[in-house]
Amino acid sequence: MKITFCCTQTPPEPWLAGFRTALPQATIEAWAPGAPPADYAVVWAPPQQFLDEQQELKGIFNIGAGVDALMKLTLPEGAAVVRIDDGGMAAQMAEFVCHAVIRHFRELDGYEVDVAQGKWSFRKPRLRSAYPVGVMGLGVLGDRVARALTGFDFPVLGWSRSPRQVDRVRCFAGQDQFNDFLSGSRFLVCLLPLTPETEGIMRRETLSMLKPGGYVINVARGGHLVEEDLVALIDEGHLAGAALDVFRTEPLAAEHAFWTHPKITVTPHTSARTLRDESIAQIAGKIAGMARGEPVAGVVDRKRGY
Amino acid sequence: MKITFCCTQTPPEPWLAGFRTALPQATIEAWAPGAPPADYAVVWAPPQQFLDEQQELKGIFNIGAGVDALMKLTLPEGAAVVRIDDGGMAAQMAEFVCHAVIRHFRELDGYEVDVAQGKWSFRKPRLRSAYPVGVMGLGVLGDRVARALTGFDFPVLGWSRSPRQVDRVRCFAGQDQFNDFLSGSRFLVCLLPLTPETEGIMRRETLSMLKPGGYVINVARGGHLVEEDLVALIDEGHLAGAALDVFRTEPLAAEHAFWTHPKITVTPHTSARTLRDESIAQIAGKIAGMARGEPVAGVVDRKRGY
Repeated sequence: MKITFCCTQTPPEPWLAGFRTALPQATIEAWAPGAPPADYAVVWAPPQQFLDEQQELKGIFNIGAGVDALMKLTLPEGAAVVRIDDGGMAAQMAEFVCHAVIRHFRELDGYEVDVAQGKWSFRKPRLRSAYPVGVMGLGVLGDRVARALTGFDFPVLGWSRSPRQVDRVRCFAGQDQFNDFLSGSRFLVCLLPLTPETEGIMRRETLSMLKPGGYVINVARGGHLVEEDLVALIDEGHLAGAALDVFRTEPLAAEHAFWTHPKITVTPHTSARTLRDESIAQIAGKIAGMARGEPVAGVVDRKRGY
Repeated sequence: MKITFCCTQTPPEPWLAGFRTALPQATIEAWAPGAPPADYAVVWAPPQQFLDEQQELKGIFNIGAGVDALMKLTLPEGAAVVRIDDGGMAAQMAEFVCHAVIRHFRELDGYEVDVAQGKWSFRKPRLRSAYPVGVMGLGVLGDRVARALTGFDFPVLGWSRSPRQVDRVRCFAGQDQFNDFLSGSRFLVCLLPLTPETEGIMRRETLSMLKPGGYVINVARGGHLVEEDLVALIDEGHLAGAALDVFRTEPLAAEHAFWTHPKITVTPHTSARTLRDESIAQIAGKIAGMARGEPVAGVVDRKRGY
């Protein structure tokens, strides 16, 4: 079995070593133009040339949860595209979102400012019932985030394309129930896949429906958000602020207004990192399963786009 | 039934109104010196004179979770001392501790510094298995905090005076197992009651046993911590830092070194506020139960001190 590795911006050596240990019967090499055809590929943002050359691939394993960049390329017909299911990402995502929700709800950012000025301050505790959290996207990551939030007794709402059930979460589905979901939410957390349908889903029209004092947390893709609309709604006072981990252009341009906006917290796409050991174990297991003809989890529906 | 209200630093009117609605058959008044004897008292940091005069009290309800200040006074012999069980505090405590743990583990404070300087930075993800969290105290609050931490897949250790069981938490009990608990922990969270036995429990001798790079979170009482020992161990490099919400003297003195120490995060005793509505409902329910001769939860063992 031949595996080719083509991940831009990722030093290949530790990955190759990990796969060689996990799959000793396989040959695994970093891809170079003109390399012989392989059976399986491990990729992140590969060039189109790679896909054009590797026409015999049976499986393409993406080392991130979002395959939006990959789906814009022309892929070999016969290859299954497989995303990372969790690989330690769900716990990280739950951490990142809970940290952002708690920090805003409990005004811990405000206390930090007070303390930096030597002030022992008191802020009236906020009512939890006035801060329902809406989670868009209830896949592996969204489900985990929504459940983590219920652990702190927040009212949690969930929205997904097709109906889902999550314990203690009020679930909405489809376009028909989207407005009810939005108007019931004060926090809005985006964990949707980026597809032509979800591009720009957070824009003036939708963000205006959030409860006054709304707070936006985007940990999915920059393309989900119309940036100017968010800034306008914050500056107009309808939204209280935002925590943004993803952007239309990454790294965020030096002159971008987000860097210094007092009500926007920027992080450098760090909400859920691909963890090498977990990812190698997961992908190696799936390659072995696929080679034995077994079905594997996380295969992308090419038509749906995720 | 007569209820007297004696909470220093708390405007009495909204509490009196709440109790009058919850217990319409009772008479409830704010205490003043020389007031007639009452059956039940709702207190926070009452003066000794109050307790000396109110010798007929059957129940003294403390509107905080910690009764250490109250237990230092001379109390009427026949009165049961009752603390708040939860009253919305457990969820707040879980929030506050998880926020502090996640913030340090994920280096979100560091990313914030980078972003303030316009830097799109990358920090190598830390291994969760290298960051076990030890929770001291497994009462209503500690149990909730420990369980919340397991939700993010941290290895969690718990320590309490008498043996306890908490799902997915490795529990230790008593003096014999204290060193094993400490040496297995990297984060140390204090949620113990303050008693003569736990005073100064976090000192050089014990904090030195934490794994290198340890991080201390104190949300119990300032008296649990020997402040100079903590600062010395941070400055010597054995500990990575601390998040402190409680102090030996509150408000923290203006000249205290904690305000500006770069590795210590100070908050003004805000980890779990007493929430008025929840507390009134809980105490009113207990007073009604006690008046009917029923046992109530949260009665303090005077000898044990909590």
